[in-house]
Amino acid sequence: MSLIVAIDIGGTHIRAAAYTPESTRPIAHHKTRSLAQTPGVFDRLVEAVEAIWQEGNVAAIGIASPGPLDPHSGTILDTPNIPEWANFPIASKLTERFGVPAYLDNDANLAGLAEWQFGAGKGHSDMVYLTISTGVGGGVICNNRLLQGYHGMGAELGHMTIDPNGPLCGCGHRGHVESFSSGPAIARYVNERLQAGDTSTLQPDPNLTPAQIAEAALKGDALAISAYARAGEYLGIAVANYLAIFDPSILIFGGGVSQAGDLLFKPFEASLRRHVFHPHYLDNLTITRAALGDDAGLLGALALARLALNGKK
Amino acid sequence: MSLIVAIDIGGTHIRAAAYTPESTRPIAHHKTRSLAQTPGVFDRLVEAVEAIWQEGNVAAIGIASPGPLDPHSGTILDTPNIPEWANFPIASKLTERFGVPAYLDNDANLAGLAEWQFGAGKGHSDMVYLTISTGVGGGVICNNRLLQGYHGMGAELGHMTIDPNGPLCGCGHRGHVESFSSGPAIARYVNERLQAGDTSTLQPDPNLTPAQIAEAALKGDALAISAYARAGEYLGIAVANYLAIFDPSILIFGGGVSQAGDLLFKPFEASLRRHVFHPHYLDNLTITRAALGDDAGLLGALALARLALNGKK
Repeated sequence: MSLIVAIDIGGTHIRAAAYTPESTRPIAHHKTRSLAQTPGVFDRLVEAVEAIWQEGNVAAIGIASPGPLDPHSGTILDTPNIPEWANFPIASKLTERFGVPAYLDNDANLAGLAEWQFGAGKGHSDMVYLTISTGVGGGVICNNRLLQGYHGMGAELGHMTIDPNGPLCGCGHRGHVESFSSGPAIARYVNERLQAGDTSTLQPDPNLTPAQIAEAALKGDALAISAYARAGEYLGIAVANYLAIFDPSILIFGGGVSQAGDLLFKPFEASLRRHVFHPHYLDNLTITRAALGDDAGLLGALALARLALNGKK
Repeated sequence: MSLIVAIDIGGTHIRAAAYTPESTRPIAHHKTRSLAQTPGVFDRLVEAVEAIWQEGNVAAIGIASPGPLDPHSGTILDTPNIPEWANFPIASKLTERFGVPAYLDNDANLAGLAEWQFGAGKGHSDMVYLTISTGVGGGVICNNRLLQGYHGMGAELGHMTIDPNGPLCGCGHRGHVESFSSGPAIARYVNERLQAGDTSTLQPDPNLTPAQIAEAALKGDALAISAYARAGEYLGIAVANYLAIFDPSILIFGGGVSQAGDLLFKPFEASLRRHVFHPHYLDNLTITRAALGDDAGLLGALALARLALNGKK
C-alpha cells in the first residue's frame, strides 16, 4: 500500500504514473491520447491507470485536470476541453473503480503545489506561481498551505480585472490579466495593430503564435516588441496586486509565454517597480522560472495525494 | 499568568484592556489621548498599560496599530499618524518594559481576525474582511489562518489596481480600490462633478464628508446618489477579484462608509453579479456587516496574542 498513482488530464494526452514514497521519479508511466471531444474519455483514463496499476500496492490517486472543478468533492464542473464531463464526480468514480481514495485539483494549482514541494518554491511559506500560456492561471501557497478556497475555486489569478475597459477575456469579462498577457492576447493585439495600419514584418493571421511574434521581436520588429512590452506592462500591474494581496517571498513563472524571456520580463520588471504599492514587498523577493516543466501536473497530483494522506492538505 | 493585555493604537486615542482566558469582556480598561504628533507617544502607551497591569498575572500583550508594519519582528515601519515611530520596534520595547511576549499586527488585519474569532466570521475557514472608511483595508483568513505574508504586508486589499488610468490614490498610485470607494474618494468625486458644473444640493467643499453626501442622497440628490453608485460599482469589481483570488465563504464589511447601507450596497451587489468570474463563487456566500464595532482592534490584538500563545498563529 505504498504507491501513489498520479494522473494528468490534458486536452491532447492523459498521463498516469506510479511513484514510490519519497521519490519523484515514477516506477511506471503510461501516456494515451485523450481524444477529449470523443465519448469514452473516462474509459481511456481507466485504461491508462490499469496499465500501471499494482493491485494491493497503491495507497491513493492524485488527479490534475483543467477546471473549473471542485477539489473538495472531487467533481469536474465543466471543462471546455472535455464536453462529456459536466458535473462529473471523477474522484469518486476512480475510488469506486480502484478502491483507494482519490484527490483532485486543477492543473494550475497543482503545478504551483509541485513547484512548492519539489521545484523552485521549496522552503517558501508564501508563494505565488503564475502560468502564462493560452490562459493565465495561478497556484498560491499561503502559510504553507495550498490556497483552494471554499468552493475550491481560489487562486484564479488570471481572472482579476485590472482595467474594466480593457479587452474582452476568453471568459466573457473585460480587462482580466489573461486578456492582456496570455499568448492569444498578445497575438490579438498584433493583429489589431496590423489591421489599424501599423507596419511590421508580420502579416495579419488569426493563427499567429506568441513564438512567431517573439521571433519577429528578436529580429527587431517594432510592433512585435511593443506587443510583448504591453503584455509585460499589464503583467507588472497584476503582480503588484498579487504582492499587495499575498506578500509572497517567491514568484514563479511557468507556461509557454514565459519562454519569451527578456522580451516580456524586462518591461514586466520595470512596470512592477513602478506599480508596487510599497518597495518593501520587493526586498528579498525571488522572481524565477518554473523548474518542473511538463511533469508539473503529474508531480502536483502526486504532492496532493501525499499531503492528503498525511493529513496536511 | 493568565491575563492578556490588548492595546489598540489610534490616531486620536490609545486604549489598553486586560482579558481573562476565554472571555472577550475586559476586566480592566484604560483610554488615553495619543497626541500622535507630539513626542512621547510610547510613554503615554506605557502609562495606559500600567493603569491596567497586574504584575505577575499577564501572559502576553497584543498590539493593534496602523501600518505599514512588520508583524514578524514586531516593528512599526512608518505610520503617517505617528511621525516619531519610524522603524520602531514596539513589540520588543514592550517586552523589555513588561517582561512578557508582545505580538503586533495592523488594525485592519486584526479587525478581520477579531471578526473571525469572535464576530461575524466565526466558523468560516476562508474569510475576507474589508473596512471602508478613510482608507480601504483588508483582513483575510485562508485555510483557518490569518494571511500575513512574508514581510507581514499581505492583505492590503485597498491597494489593488482596478484601473491603471483611475484617480490618484493617497499612496501615490492610480486606480486602487481606495481611490474609488473610500470616503475621501466619494467626497472628491462629488467636488469634481460640482466644479464641472453638475447641479446638486451640495456645495463644493474640501471638508465634505461621506455622511453629508449620504444625507443628500437619501433626500434624492442625484449627484450624491451617483457618487455612492460609482463607489459601489468599483467595489463590485474589486470584490469580484477577491472572490476569484480567495474564494471565501464570507465577506464582511466594516468601516464608516459601509454605514451608508443600500446607497452603496445595492450598486455594489449589481456590479458584483456582473463582474464575478463564475456564478459558483456566489453560491452560499455570506455577505454581511462587521459585528464588533469600535472594539474590533482590541479584540483582534487579544486574538493575536491568544493564538500566538497557543502556537496557532
